[in-house]
Amino acid sequence: MRVLGIDPGIAIVGFGFIDKIGSRLVPVQYGSVETVAGTSHPTRLMQVYESIGALMDKYKPDAVAVEKLFFNRNVTTAFTVGEARGVIVLAAVQRGLPVAEYTPMQVKQAIVGYGKAEKRQVQEMTKMFLKLSAVPKPDDVADALAIGICHAHSAVLLDKMNGVTRR
Amino acid sequence: MRVLGIDPGIAIVGFGFIDKIGSRLVPVQYGSVETVAGTSHPTRLMQVYESIGALMDKYKPDAVAVEKLFFNRNVTTAFTVGEARGVIVLAAVQRGLPVAEYTPMQVKQAIVGYGKAEKRQVQEMTKMFLKLSAVPKPDDVADALAIGICHAHSAVLLDKMNGVTRR
Repeated sequence: MRVLGIDPGIAIVGFGFIDKIGSRLVPVQYGSVETVAGTSHPTRLMQVYESIGALMDKYKPDAVAVEKLFFNRNVTTAFTVGEARGVIVLAAVQRGLPVAEYTPMQVKQAIVGYGKAEKRQVQEMTKMFLKLSAVPKPDDVADALAIGICHAHSAVLLDKMNGVTRR
Repeated sequence: MRVLGIDPGIAIVGFGFIDKIGSRLVPVQYGSVETVAGTSHPTRLMQVYESIGALMDKYKPDAVAVEKLFFNRNVTTAFTVGEARGVIVLAAVQRGLPVAEYTPMQVKQAIVGYGKAEKRQVQEMTKMFLKLSAVPKPDDVADALAIGICHAHSAVLLDKMNGVTRR
């Protein structure tokens, strides 16, 4: 199963494609889509939509996992991030991809085992899970990979639960 | 000039097409796009995107005006409304339409002449400007028409300012 983890935003979108092979997690491609600061807000939204759509077409994920909500940010930020998230979710659903949503707390719980873990701990565990030589930069990329791992772990867990059920 | 005013949302999107003929404002078509509560969030976003896109193709506005931000609502609402707004702005920019943004305060200022006007006052003035027999229901439709009038008024004002500059 290939998961696309996404940390949405209007200026920068972090993305990470992760393959789950058995219980192993293998990073396929990760990075960020950045929009130009001088361009209009609607144009930037279209850039996000088209760039993420092109990545979906190229790397063909089976599922998309997106960060759900920033409880700790203000309304203006939530509004803008929501807009970017809207066009990303649209790109996914237009390709028939299931979209999973995780709150930052759920991501921390899945990666570190503790919902109030520090950002640094999440990044170190992300690096370890994917056997990376360094924490990816900027933070948006590391966050996207963490969301992807969170979804892959949930899928592993669901497999195990189904296994238990079948016994 | 034909303006499409939009009050964005995930469950209901109010819309109103208004023609500005000289200084007159003529309502062309208005109503709401509603998504089904039981369907998934990504599916509802796509329904909003496709329905509003189809209306743009049918009524061919020259400009789109969308409400900008709810200062008085919570972060979760802002996030969801932001998502709907994102796919609506995308539909507009994909058709080469300019997108104008107005805060509720700017809309009130433009319609009633007072940024802290009551909702009821805005609705009554909207009804009067468009020579409607009653205030359109639900509120989302009346709000969308008010946003459209706000943009048409701004356009009238810009015309006048340009007129003064040319003298």
